[in-house]
Amino acid sequence: MTQQTPPAAPVPPPHPSLAERVLAGDPRAMARAISLIEDEDGAGADLLRDIFGRTGHAYLIGVTGPPGAGKSTLVDRLTSEFRRRPATVGVLAVDPSSPFTGGALLGDRIRMQAQAGDEGVFIRSMATRGNLGGLARATADAALVLDAAGKEFVLIETVGVGQDEIEIVRTADVSIVTLVPGAGDEVQALKAGIMEIADIFVVNKADREGADRLVSAIEAQLSLKTYDADEWRPPIVKTIASSGHGVHELVDVIDQHRGHAAKTGVDRGRTRSAHRLRELVSQRFLEHLERCVLAPGELATIIERIAAREVDPYTAARDLFTRGLAGPL
Amino acid sequence: MTQQTPPAAPVPPPHPSLAERVLAGDPRAMARAISLIEDEDGAGADLLRDIFGRTGHAYLIGVTGPPGAGKSTLVDRLTSEFRRRPATVGVLAVDPSSPFTGGALLGDRIRMQAQAGDEGVFIRSMATRGNLGGLARATADAALVLDAAGKEFVLIETVGVGQDEIEIVRTADVSIVTLVPGAGDEVQALKAGIMEIADIFVVNKADREGADRLVSAIEAQLSLKTYDADEWRPPIVKTIASSGHGVHELVDVIDQHRGHAAKTGVDRGRTRSAHRLRELVSQRFLEHLERCVLAPGELATIIERIAAREVDPYTAARDLFTRGLAGPL
Repeated sequence: MTQQTPPAAPVPPPHPSLAERVLAGDPRAMARAISLIEDEDGAGADLLRDIFGRTGHAYLIGVTGPPGAGKSTLVDRLTSEFRRRPATVGVLAVDPSSPFTGGALLGDRIRMQAQAGDEGVFIRSMATRGNLGGLARATADAALVLDAAGKEFVLIETVGVGQDEIEIVRTADVSIVTLVPGAGDEVQALKAGIMEIADIFVVNKADREGADRLVSAIEAQLSLKTYDADEWRPPIVKTIASSGHGVHELVDVIDQHRGHAAKTGVDRGRTRSAHRLRELVSQRFLEHLERCVLAPGELATIIERIAAREVDPYTAARDLFTRGLAGPL
Repeated sequence: MTQQTPPAAPVPPPHPSLAERVLAGDPRAMARAISLIEDEDGAGADLLRDIFGRTGHAYLIGVTGPPGAGKSTLVDRLTSEFRRRPATVGVLAVDPSSPFTGGALLGDRIRMQAQAGDEGVFIRSMATRGNLGGLARATADAALVLDAAGKEFVLIETVGVGQDEIEIVRTADVSIVTLVPGAGDEVQALKAGIMEIADIFVVNKADREGADRLVSAIEAQLSLKTYDADEWRPPIVKTIASSGHGVHELVDVIDQHRGHAAKTGVDRGRTRSAHRLRELVSQRFLEHLERCVLAPGELATIIERIAAREVDPYTAARDLFTRGLAGPL
């Protein structure tokens, strides 16, 4: 006699996971995911693992330049331009945080009004919470979230031109350096070492006096370097972001750069992968040391001894490395 | 019969090592040592190990602020002020490099003329050559060299207020944030997140219009935070660095901060030690992986697979970590 199974009750739809909601492009899930990443929460790492296979499709555009160069307005205009194609856009505004407010000081940002209510645009500010390199790592991870959520263009805007901000922008698929006439920018361009990361120069507020002088100064710098025949030579685009002048041309130049990179096999994604892998391996080894090898408080004692010059950090690091390899007793 | 040894020939004085010459305060040895550090040469690490026990005596002063704030002039004045005590001074001017010139763009620097020929002052510009965090690490190591060479004050000046520069200055014993009236600095102070690292605010070019407004803007920000009774509240010092006005007062405030830190047991040296130790351990584990565990080219293959989304970096990092612990077969 065969036993008959009763007809199955209809299975309720499973509660979708955060990763599933991110992959479906749910803005609230994206915001939550980026918060987990900023908090360096273990759940953030799990999420990234789950979504990573669906990334690699977004085109990352870095926009940097000194404060006051009109980067926010430019990013706003670029967003509108991409939306017209139509393509979806994610924006990450990278800004250090302050304990005085407990977060990024972008609350006062009246910008991006044109995009308010447009579901094809996701805007988020990124604030540093932790230690050295934390912001670069969090920004790269946040870009993965927007990528997995299907944003075709991810614009990464920085507040300044510091070393960390240069690193953030350097690994984008295209780096746009924005300068303005006057304000000693001819010198700033040199001083801040941003010549080397620019794929495209934008001279914004190009209706101001000195715009042509700034273009000449950039040209003079570019002429110091010899470019191979198949090497990309950074073009200079004049814009007036406030009126939208020159933004269409800038988008054309971005497309040209993308085509050039594809043709010559340049892949910044590989550089990003290498960075990320090294960081993750380091982090895992340090966690292993603290959790499995060292006694509670032992690391603090070692640091005290270094500060007191009883041991040098090189010898201490070698010991820790050896003990880490030997593992827990 | 006892054998008689012939009288020993006079031993020639041994050639002093680079470390010995650094410890003796030889400026050429100091310059050479910093170059080794910048090049991430193994000899640089050896040297640091040799001199580390003689460090920990210098007082590190970080000076940051937006370009154009007059930081170089201020550092020049502070140097003269310390020399008058008399104390010895080292200056590190931290500046990103550019491939367009192959080095830091400080050659044109006419500054520090007052110190030319003064053996009690050592001035050096630091350029970034490598990857993320490289400049912060190299600057910290260069400061150790100046410390070991007996410089009593080490002034670390940055070109801007980016994240990495903030990190460089944050670990100094005292951090001075320099702002100037006008130029939207009221907003910059907020935007760049430098409120949190300032131990002392300098409003430079204080004879300019808007100086009092800037002081008020800083005060308004400071008043947002509650300071405990024994907590240092950053004072604001008005200076005109070009004429030297206010610099004596600034030095007094620096001394007050030093006394306060000593009284309350604040020790940035411990923070520096912790950073350095973590970095060195990470670096050693990565080197171990590449040299002893992985086959030649294997790391590149893994990175390719991540870039192609065949494996996620989290899983790859876990595998590398496990293999690193297992060691060579």
